[in-house]
Amino acid sequence: MGHPVVAVAIVFVSAAIAMAASSQYSHHPLDPLTATEITAIRAAVLASPLVPARPLFFHYVGLDEPDKPDVLSYAYGAADAAATSSQMTLPRRAFVIARAGGQSHEFTVDIAADNASVLSHAVHRGPGFPMFTDEDQIAAMALPYTYPPFVESVRRRGLDVGEVGCGVLSRGWFGAEQPAYGGARVVKMKCVVVDYNATANIYARPVEGVVMVVDLDRMAIIGYRDRAVFTVPKAEGTDYRADKVGPPFTGPAAPPGVVFHVGFDMRAGTVISLASVNDTDAGGLKRRVLYRGFVSEIFVPYMDPEEEWYFHTFTDAGEYGLGALASQLQRGADCPANAVYMDGYYAGSDGKPVKAEDVICLFERYAGDVAWRHTNGIGLGGLFSEVRPDVTLVVRMVVTVGNYDYTLDSEFKTVGSIKIMVSLSGILEMKAINYTHVDQIREDTHGTLITENTIGVYHDHFVTYHLDLDIDGTRNSFIKNNIVPKRNTGVRATGGAPTPRRSYWTVLYEVAETEAEGQVNINSAPADLLFVNPSKKTKIGNEVGYRLIPTGATAMSLLADDDYPERRASYTKKQVWVTPYNKSEKWASGLYAEQSTGDDNLAAWSKRNRSIKDEDIVLWYTVGLHHVPYQEDFPVMPTISGALEVRPSNFFERNPLIRTKPPENSPNCSCSIGGSA
Amino acid sequence: MGHPVVAVAIVFVSAAIAMAASSQYSHHPLDPLTATEITAIRAAVLASPLVPARPLFFHYVGLDEPDKPDVLSYAYGAADAAATSSQMTLPRRAFVIARAGGQSHEFTVDIAADNASVLSHAVHRGPGFPMFTDEDQIAAMALPYTYPPFVESVRRRGLDVGEVGCGVLSRGWFGAEQPAYGGARVVKMKCVVVDYNATANIYARPVEGVVMVVDLDRMAIIGYRDRAVFTVPKAEGTDYRADKVGPPFTGPAAPPGVVFHVGFDMRAGTVISLASVNDTDAGGLKRRVLYRGFVSEIFVPYMDPEEEWYFHTFTDAGEYGLGALASQLQRGADCPANAVYMDGYYAGSDGKPVKAEDVICLFERYAGDVAWRHTNGIGLGGLFSEVRPDVTLVVRMVVTVGNYDYTLDSEFKTVGSIKIMVSLSGILEMKAINYTHVDQIREDTHGTLITENTIGVYHDHFVTYHLDLDIDGTRNSFIKNNIVPKRNTGVRATGGAPTPRRSYWTVLYEVAETEAEGQVNINSAPADLLFVNPSKKTKIGNEVGYRLIPTGATAMSLLADDDYPERRASYTKKQVWVTPYNKSEKWASGLYAEQSTGDDNLAAWSKRNRSIKDEDIVLWYTVGLHHVPYQEDFPVMPTISGALEVRPSNFFERNPLIRTKPPENSPNCSCSIGGSA
Repeated sequence: MGHPVVAVAIVFVSAAIAMAASSQYSHHPLDPLTATEITAIRAAVLASPLVPARPLFFHYVGLDEPDKPDVLSYAYGAADAAATSSQMTLPRRAFVIARAGGQSHEFTVDIAADNASVLSHAVHRGPGFPMFTDEDQIAAMALPYTYPPFVESVRRRGLDVGEVGCGVLSRGWFGAEQPAYGGARVVKMKCVVVDYNATANIYARPVEGVVMVVDLDRMAIIGYRDRAVFTVPKAEGTDYRADKVGPPFTGPAAPPGVVFHVGFDMRAGTVISLASVNDTDAGGLKRRVLYRGFVSEIFVPYMDPEEEWYFHTFTDAGEYGLGALASQLQRGADCPANAVYMDGYYAGSDGKPVKAEDVICLFERYAGDVAWRHTNGIGLGGLFSEVRPDVTLVVRMVVTVGNYDYTLDSEFKTVGSIKIMVSLSGILEMKAINYTHVDQIREDTHGTLITENTIGVYHDHFVTYHLDLDIDGTRNSFIKNNIVPKRNTGVRATGGAPTPRRSYWTVLYEVAETEAEGQVNINSAPADLLFVNPSKKTKIGNEVGYRLIPTGATAMSLLADDDYPERRASYTKKQVWVTPYNKSEKWASGLYAEQSTGDDNLAAWSKRNRSIKDEDIVLWYTVGLHHVPYQEDFPVMPTISGALEVRPSNFFERNPLIRTKPPENSPNCSCSIGGSA
Repeated sequence: MGHPVVAVAIVFVSAAIAMAASSQYSHHPLDPLTATEITAIRAAVLASPLVPARPLFFHYVGLDEPDKPDVLSYAYGAADAAATSSQMTLPRRAFVIARAGGQSHEFTVDIAADNASVLSHAVHRGPGFPMFTDEDQIAAMALPYTYPPFVESVRRRGLDVGEVGCGVLSRGWFGAEQPAYGGARVVKMKCVVVDYNATANIYARPVEGVVMVVDLDRMAIIGYRDRAVFTVPKAEGTDYRADKVGPPFTGPAAPPGVVFHVGFDMRAGTVISLASVNDTDAGGLKRRVLYRGFVSEIFVPYMDPEEEWYFHTFTDAGEYGLGALASQLQRGADCPANAVYMDGYYAGSDGKPVKAEDVICLFERYAGDVAWRHTNGIGLGGLFSEVRPDVTLVVRMVVTVGNYDYTLDSEFKTVGSIKIMVSLSGILEMKAINYTHVDQIREDTHGTLITENTIGVYHDHFVTYHLDLDIDGTRNSFIKNNIVPKRNTGVRATGGAPTPRRSYWTVLYEVAETEAEGQVNINSAPADLLFVNPSKKTKIGNEVGYRLIPTGATAMSLLADDDYPERRASYTKKQVWVTPYNKSEKWASGLYAEQSTGDDNLAAWSKRNRSIKDEDIVLWYTVGLHHVPYQEDFPVMPTISGALEVRPSNFFERNPLIRTKPPENSPNCSCSIGGSA
């Protein structure tokens, strides 16, 4: 491809690959150590008289990069970097951490071509230990099989020791409150049932209650505890390997399939209705998620109080109309080649229909994302990977309100999520000023000097969505799962010993009873926010729900409550509002938004503080950006985005993508822009 | 395509298109109004005796959707929705807002086949007005040309009235502090130089100082003000049309090209070094952005204080090694077909080289995104769109630390941004418990019952990046552009009248002098955070810089400061830390992270509170998630992501993508997953 980015990058990648395979030393001072170099480093350390103790184990071997100034002059020093690099030769060194004689040793090793020599050595005397080695872990994992108390614990649980595997867990650090074991390199081990015929998901079948303490240097079990017997969860339904979850498969393209209706309104633009997802584990049952979703308002207040600018406090949907201002989408530019297009119709002021051509596009996005994956790791038998590439379905409209271009996407994800995203581009609102250089400026210009005589004026964008979520039915509740810190009181579960852990967090479930409790600043206390259906539970008793996942652009209005524009858009001081469904409450800034006074807006309706518990409720979510212009925004702005995802959370009995088929071959996504070499 | 999602969706889209074009009335109760229906609605309203006043202008015509219960029973009512829909017929109605006789009239119109009748009529008596019509705006825009004071103002500025155009701006609402004009439908108008031969960017050339007041119903200018003359910015350099910015073009694939070095480390995994961007406006000059960037640590504390779980406080990089645990990437699944792959080498405990095959992939992503766009709007002459599709370059590694899989991406964006993203998948850490149903649970189980006998334990993920940004050179400063609310004091610029606006926000520039000032909670007060080079300025005097744009996953640690795991990872209570460059300060949790005590970590180093102003400084950024498991996370977790983008901000003189070529034809991104029908 003629892509300069990749063209250049590939050169480096190829170089690195060549280097890595080469038997010569590196060609770039930051190239990672080659196999040949590592071999030479090993020989040098083992040959060094500084550490005679054996056995000696290598825990870390990495490039000790040259000093930054040298690397910089190598890379950028001369006008012709290439020439420089061919002239300069920088020291090539490695940093090594090895364990021997119960100590951590540090070596600096000089590498010249295929031989190396130790430049310096030090013993680490402080606390802490280097990374575990694979061999540490593999050796430790073999210990329990011959440790009688463990064999007995396994038997107590009706298991055969042959079907159990244990893993090395770092023990952390808990000061004097934990045994010191004379400063030995101690880890803990916990075990799981490993039976790959039954399931690949070893983590789903813990041998709960058993913890071992292992000294890695002595490679011996030095502590053992079997607190109590817990039921080992069944293997059934835990596997994720394609050959175990299917056939039947739900197809290579990922379920849950989504069904929805695409509409058009001259004020709201695109309207998504009756969105439901297929629950393949429930025989393809169509389950409801969203009744109606659309952009209710876009409030754009500018931050210049001067005479010609103070009134720039736009409500784009209510004053200009998003559908009426939808742009004809440019095929292959606004939407990719695989898009399909829809027209819209609205009424002109004479009442006659006006055709809005190609204003909505719909396309599948293959972005190289992964829907889910797992690689089964070291030492536990079976090394294998299961990976499912992702694909999403995008419904797009671009609305151009004068200078600004809003790309409004509704993205349906394979996991059952709906992601609403707004991407801003277009032209800044600019103010002429007599300055040509920042140094001339003495007062607050209420914006950035982005080019001579031109201020890009500070402003906000508040895009407010009306999302009438109906999670598995009409009557829902809004839940705040508050994530709250707790002290460790030492109160223990049956038979449990006290632990040195001093704090943790837990989840406090809170149902929003009324509209006041449904208003949330998502930047304040941490919480998972969910819409749930209190009358629908999963088999094991969790309320079925969808949760909110904000993705950037969480700004709120900074205008004073008594300021007129803020009174009109007072709902922009919380990102989240929840109201009972009311057919007349569609427009956050009121039906008559133009010169509106705030007496008929979302905040005004909510003052009634109606009940929102187990009712037909609506989510209002505002994506907000404070826009400080920069010179890159001139003459036309690069796109910047904000989004909200609503994601199934205890809605399905399990990962709805579990029965998707792995790709038989690569998703073929090698794209090209027409006209590129 | 065999994609069930799209297959279904397309049906609806096609239906809607068919409907929209049809001369029959809709087939789905939520279908938007067709051209035929709009024509019938118009006839009904004009024929209605209820509003004899003329002229009558239509401001809003939209579907008045049937009542929600009826739509729901239509869509989901019976087992076989299709059968139902063919039987049920719901009322088909439109809601209309029209202006006549100086009043806003509301009509409900019943539509039957090709004729319609008015069901109800009301007059809006409250404040506010309906959306502007195109005709409102076009008529208003014609007024100034024959308005002598405006013609004079234009002459004062040395312009010809023929080269000026004016736009309708909503006036907002400012209560009694603004003229009432007897409640008339009043807007303001401001003007720009419109000379499409000189530039398409009309917004860049405001006729500053002139504001008109227009009564839209009388369609007359009723107020006029010319405060002062300001320089009209020059047209040169403001255009964005391809034929005006080039040739030469910088190619269809977007600059700024980026050059960087890809390395590998057994602890950090992928290391990106010496990243610089080509400044095409500076003759392709390579300008530095990032010296070294890598994942320094991943801290994962679990929230169960019980005996077998309290010590689950992992530092994955320092204890297990991200490079050593990098998974072999599955071609076509972990990375798309157009990816290239790199190997890595690390040392086993015996010091011998171990080959990590295909652990890094590099690919171009064409996701259907738009790099920038603008459609030139109504009534200002020339209706045209300029759109540039986007492409990004992704460097990816997947690290599997036991049960968890971290997909670690470095994404190089065409605008010059570097976006670092972590995507989590894999298997939850599960605790066996004797409960099979939520109703049995009485105590805090420290997690979610995700299937029978199985708790998905609450935990956090804190992925801390070491980003040694060198913005256009080594010595940088860290800037907090604090976005602060202000009262409108009424202090006016020269000749300016007082305004009723009561508040706004502005930007207060703050340089972080020392490390303490470099620590930021990004969820607190709003601010743009930048790395700038104080010794490099743009031509007009702005400091060149890059700014931080967090994209989701901004959680911070909730552990108590005196708790041992928190002492080891105390840096996880702020997302942003800035330190002076120190070659030995690579690992946020210290060189010897295993059983570390917090005496050698990022927070400990920063206690020295070194100067970070105009120094070689390093950004440490933590992507954080509180993970409350849900049943969908079992048996394997769908991917969830968090990211940080560092984006050029006054780094370039203008949008670096301005001279990119529009696609000659579509980016060909129609992908398919092998094996799909």
